[in-house]
Amino acid sequence: MTRIYDDPAEFADDQLAGFLDLYSDRVRGVHGGVVSHRAEEPQVAVVIGGGSGHYPAFCGTVGPGLAHGAVVGNIFTSPSAAQAYSVCKAADQGRGVILSFGNYAGDVINFGIAAERLRAEGIDTRIVIVTDDVASAEEEEKRRGIAGDFTVFKVMGAAAAAGHDLDEVERLGRAANAATRSLGVAFSGCTMPGEDDPLFTVPDGHLGLGLGIHGEPGIRDVEMLRAKDLAELLVSELVKNAPADAGRRVGTILNGLGTTKYEELFLLWGHVAKGLRDAGLEIVDPEVGELVTSLDMGGCSLTLMWLDDELDPLWRADAYTPAYRKSGSPLAALREPTADELAEADAVVTAPEAGEAAIRLAGTVRDAFAAIEATLREHEHELGRIDAVAGDGDHGRGMLKGVTAATARLSDAGEDVGGGWLLQQAGQAWAERAGGTSGVLWGAALEAFGRHLDDRATGYPADVVVGGVREFATTIQQLGGAQPGDKTLLDALLPFVDDLEQRVSGGEELAAAWAGAAEVATAKGAETADMRPRIGRARPLAEKSVGTPDAGATSMGLVVTAVGNVLKERNQ
Amino acid sequence: MTRIYDDPAEFADDQLAGFLDLYSDRVRGVHGGVVSHRAEEPQVAVVIGGGSGHYPAFCGTVGPGLAHGAVVGNIFTSPSAAQAYSVCKAADQGRGVILSFGNYAGDVINFGIAAERLRAEGIDTRIVIVTDDVASAEEEEKRRGIAGDFTVFKVMGAAAAAGHDLDEVERLGRAANAATRSLGVAFSGCTMPGEDDPLFTVPDGHLGLGLGIHGEPGIRDVEMLRAKDLAELLVSELVKNAPADAGRRVGTILNGLGTTKYEELFLLWGHVAKGLRDAGLEIVDPEVGELVTSLDMGGCSLTLMWLDDELDPLWRADAYTPAYRKSGSPLAALREPTADELAEADAVVTAPEAGEAAIRLAGTVRDAFAAIEATLREHEHELGRIDAVAGDGDHGRGMLKGVTAATARLSDAGEDVGGGWLLQQAGQAWAERAGGTSGVLWGAALEAFGRHLDDRATGYPADVVVGGVREFATTIQQLGGAQPGDKTLLDALLPFVDDLEQRVSGGEELAAAWAGAAEVATAKGAETADMRPRIGRARPLAEKSVGTPDAGATSMGLVVTAVGNVLKERNQ
Repeated sequence: MTRIYDDPAEFADDQLAGFLDLYSDRVRGVHGGVVSHRAEEPQVAVVIGGGSGHYPAFCGTVGPGLAHGAVVGNIFTSPSAAQAYSVCKAADQGRGVILSFGNYAGDVINFGIAAERLRAEGIDTRIVIVTDDVASAEEEEKRRGIAGDFTVFKVMGAAAAAGHDLDEVERLGRAANAATRSLGVAFSGCTMPGEDDPLFTVPDGHLGLGLGIHGEPGIRDVEMLRAKDLAELLVSELVKNAPADAGRRVGTILNGLGTTKYEELFLLWGHVAKGLRDAGLEIVDPEVGELVTSLDMGGCSLTLMWLDDELDPLWRADAYTPAYRKSGSPLAALREPTADELAEADAVVTAPEAGEAAIRLAGTVRDAFAAIEATLREHEHELGRIDAVAGDGDHGRGMLKGVTAATARLSDAGEDVGGGWLLQQAGQAWAERAGGTSGVLWGAALEAFGRHLDDRATGYPADVVVGGVREFATTIQQLGGAQPGDKTLLDALLPFVDDLEQRVSGGEELAAAWAGAAEVATAKGAETADMRPRIGRARPLAEKSVGTPDAGATSMGLVVTAVGNVLKERNQ
Repeated sequence: MTRIYDDPAEFADDQLAGFLDLYSDRVRGVHGGVVSHRAEEPQVAVVIGGGSGHYPAFCGTVGPGLAHGAVVGNIFTSPSAAQAYSVCKAADQGRGVILSFGNYAGDVINFGIAAERLRAEGIDTRIVIVTDDVASAEEEEKRRGIAGDFTVFKVMGAAAAAGHDLDEVERLGRAANAATRSLGVAFSGCTMPGEDDPLFTVPDGHLGLGLGIHGEPGIRDVEMLRAKDLAELLVSELVKNAPADAGRRVGTILNGLGTTKYEELFLLWGHVAKGLRDAGLEIVDPEVGELVTSLDMGGCSLTLMWLDDELDPLWRADAYTPAYRKSGSPLAALREPTADELAEADAVVTAPEAGEAAIRLAGTVRDAFAAIEATLREHEHELGRIDAVAGDGDHGRGMLKGVTAATARLSDAGEDVGGGWLLQQAGQAWAERAGGTSGVLWGAALEAFGRHLDDRATGYPADVVVGGVREFATTIQQLGGAQPGDKTLLDALLPFVDDLEQRVSGGEELAAAWAGAAEVATAKGAETADMRPRIGRARPLAEKSVGTPDAGATSMGLVVTAVGNVLKERNQ
């Protein structure tokens, strides 16, 4: 739906006023439309036009290498002859004028009148009508003009910029039109400013094959197709309708009609490109995006211009307009990465050489993960039940996926690696597989813990291990952005770390200290589960995802308890 | 609605594959996203990213002068830490990495983890978070990132391209973020691929003020505003939220969210630009278009970056990416038209010097138009009634408007002008005022008739006048594209001209011949009125508009009869 306007009747003029304000450094407004500022050398003036509602057609493609002026009519309405005359007079540089537009009766009449008037005044004026839409008529000269407007304008704009004379620019424009074919599909109609209902509709779940850009009748309605099949249809129909003397190279446009987004066009392009190549065609400088739209219509069209040695360089040439900008030089300055650079980027980081202590530590890590997996598997459903109260009930499943991925990675690792590196690997595997924000946080925290444990160390005194646990907690705090009391796993974790630090600095042995602190964590986890989740303002995604708060605190209690048991066993 | 896809679950990957195929000459795909080909000199790598569905954010702004890589997540979903890590490794050129993204919890976490991993491998990695959305939180550092992503990325991309080191690029990026404010409005929600219903909605007739680009809650719903009021709201809220040390210059983006079309944005821009200037701000290199979208969401946002001498040149700098291309040089090669050129374009064509015969002819033209006006006024309602059978019933009204405009123009013309020039003027006035295709055709035909009558001639023999009438008919035939029998005014006009030519070449005097031919035309006009309109295939607009067929033939009969009477009178 068209939403932004003041007086709907003034929409076309009002939008043109905004356009002229925006691009006042390169175009000026004249009665009836827009004229580009001039190059030093006079050129044949290519003046394009038609109704509004098709941006960037037509004023968006005025500028160096493309059109010299655009006549701007009301929405979906031909400009008057007086408008076309005025724009041509302003665009004329003494080398004659080409008036070019899609084949619609109103445009044919009005631009035709303007051309007569200009000729009567001694301004040599030629008309090049675009007839690319294969769906609109059997006879080529009766076809409507759609996105093929652009290929024809582009060729003439490039020819004019290259200094060609009027005869030559006209001849090349006609050649471009003769070489261009388009086919469009519509998914939904468009709505005029001030209207609530669309100008036309497409039946639900269907697409209008060949439907015109003002809703003119197409060939037929077809049940909506998958992208792959849609691409096949467009490519095969165009190839079938190729000009008689068609070569192998095609300038290509996959054009969006309005509400069809670039992501959708890219997706379709993947299939279209393959289809064209499978048909033996060489794609030259493809354009995927909006070049001729139809207000907020849903749909797209495919345009092919079969290139010969004459059209090819004109299609490739530079241009610089509000909506279409092309330059070879920034790309020429780029280079692909060297083999060395590629190898460096792809290099897998290998485990650092580990000392004896680190290899012993690796055993503890393996035992700990086995214990964590066992306890999470035992409590999976209970965690899910708790999570379902305030979350989506998948906390048990997610934690189990994380730890399973971690233990699998530990089995894959060699025997002579250190515990610090192993813990980092476990964290990465956990994050990749567990999913959700809490899974990612667990993974990152484990990785940080691992980085804290130097695999070249000769031993791991309790305060070093506790420092790693603090890193684990700090990582979750910093990355997750939650505060204590926010009903997250922190509400079990932070009391655990505080208590652990206190016990160890008070001289307690690590295993005993851990077991004691784990009891605190478990109690806090249970307590947290009794509270209702709080919803804050900022970082809504974090809160929603970390927001399996009671379950998160509960599982934290389970994990530290399991690890505590492993430490006790290995201590004996 | 999102329509083009194969497997909805694979949408993000599939669209990326198409994008990579399309731009394979300048970017390459790596695990997790896209990396630009390299410039010769190594640069600090600016890596941007986030979920898909926001094109051109993020991969569309990778290229010279902007980002060096983009991490591409699933739709509206943060990429994983592993994806971000992989893209950064591939983008790194040995001068360090900036990871920059909008402030969303998932991105903060995953990019944070990736940065830690990179640092652990010795790649200096900095994080610059964009927080421009003033609607999302009071505290600046808690705000979400929306279209201000672009200003921050642009500044850092330009700084990296200028060769600055990591510290400096990071510092400038933070300065750009501190200087950037955005506010958005949503008119309608967006639909995920494969879904029938939108992810969220905006109440009918309202806009969501400050609604986030994933549907996050805004400030409030507001009744839909006229464009002028919407612009005022956006400008005033941003100015109110200006940074403490704000200067006078603002880099500006008016960003479309998806289905809001460029014409609407231009219209709004007219008001926004005025509002900014009224607020004493100088607009620098404004961008109006889609830079950060949200699938097919309706809405827009305004972004201002307050520029100082440091940010100004970085905002203005050239860039060349798939979706954003800027170059000063094509514009520098343009010049505004000279005063002489302007005068030439605006020159009003004056009447050529007229001979005695031409001035006598002018009298006949004036009398003829007075008679045509009288007869059309008399028959206005009858013509309307006839037209209402197959058309819209306004033929009488339209013809009267045309002839009234013509006679007014004749009164305005001086006394010493020739009949040929006068007829051209009458035709132009008729076409401008009568409207509809038949009005335009009448005007053009009169103009052609007038051009045929040389105002320097010493007399107007019957065959010259008849030649003018033939021009009149040919013009309508050529411009309108209708054929005899198509139920248009041609069905009265062509028999008239044929008969007139025959009589005159047979030696009959002009007035008598005209009167006789007029009877034929009237009879044919009446006959035509008995037939049902025929609808052909090609040129639907022409047929619909010229398609007041019976009424058109009838009025043609009336007109030639009235003119015949004038010729007879003046002959006496």
